[in-house]
Amino acid sequence: MKRIIAVSLAAGLATGLIGYNTTASGETDAARAPALTELPDGYRDWRLITVAHEEGKLNDIRAVLGNDIAIRAFREGAATFPDGTIIGRLAWDYHPLEESKAAFGAPQSFVAGLPKNGVQFMVKDAKKFAATGGWGYVEFDDGKPSTTAMPEACFSCHSIVKDRDFVFSRYAP
Amino acid sequence: MKRIIAVSLAAGLATGLIGYNTTASGETDAARAPALTELPDGYRDWRLITVAHEEGKLNDIRAVLGNDIAIRAFREGAATFPDGTIIGRLAWDYHPLEESKAAFGAPQSFVAGLPKNGVQFMVKDAKKFAATGGWGYVEFDDGKPSTTAMPEACFSCHSIVKDRDFVFSRYAP
Repeated sequence: MKRIIAVSLAAGLATGLIGYNTTASGETDAARAPALTELPDGYRDWRLITVAHEEGKLNDIRAVLGNDIAIRAFREGAATFPDGTIIGRLAWDYHPLEESKAAFGAPQSFVAGLPKNGVQFMVKDAKKFAATGGWGYVEFDDGKPSTTAMPEACFSCHSIVKDRDFVFSRYAP
Repeated sequence: MKRIIAVSLAAGLATGLIGYNTTASGETDAARAPALTELPDGYRDWRLITVAHEEGKLNDIRAVLGNDIAIRAFREGAATFPDGTIIGRLAWDYHPLEESKAAFGAPQSFVAGLPKNGVQFMVKDAKKFAATGGWGYVEFDDGKPSTTAMPEACFSCHSIVKDRDFVFSRYAP
């Protein structure tokens, strides 16, 4: 189980969403369709929720941004997030700052390098995404929603924090 | 020189500003006074410029935010920043995410923990802060501007990136 979660977590963190198969009849349901079909307008202007660094294969540095509904809920310490909440994750190469390295003689500062492909969002709609804890998941690669979404992979990992309404991020004041 | 820069960089990164002595007559000039006397209104709502992680004694994870003037200049790739630019630096303890550690069997995800004391700002006013490259520097501890400001320490370190108008941060798209 530990291994399954780890693999799933790595996959989810790495790509957010991995290919899924439609049912035999070719049908998909809301929970399996991309949660958003277009990048949310102005998401790069959203306010900051928190920051993180992923080691290992991911080796990135990331920011988690939220739309107004998300920020309000985080700041109010809401136990669950209201419908309309969108949380976005941007990631960049984990890049040693050359000037700092030169000054210290060893890497000291690590900054955001080139943007990683794959901007990920989780979208709250308790009814629409009831099958995955009320959250839909989507990753945009080159501005297009992944057509190989596997919300189950995201969901299985986010279930680790079911008691925080499936949200890993905590608001950084 | 390398050592001096390193120590100065560490000090600057750590606290932003360290105690300075007024002149024998007790006078200070604009470049030596705190660049701001109050925390800028709503700075936590400012948009994200970039993120970083500092190793070593600092051991923090940080976000660099900018006011509207700053964001516009960064996005336009301005060679120098206009007067009124304010760049803020928030830092938090570098904290291993327990859920990730449990899943992977080793630390994988590092997130923002408790906020570090000391919110730092650099403020552009080419005339007022002419003595320090056109930038004033200030750190707020517990919401109050440091009364032991040493803009020279900030300035000497930021001089490393004089060709980028003394700004270390690059905009993370």
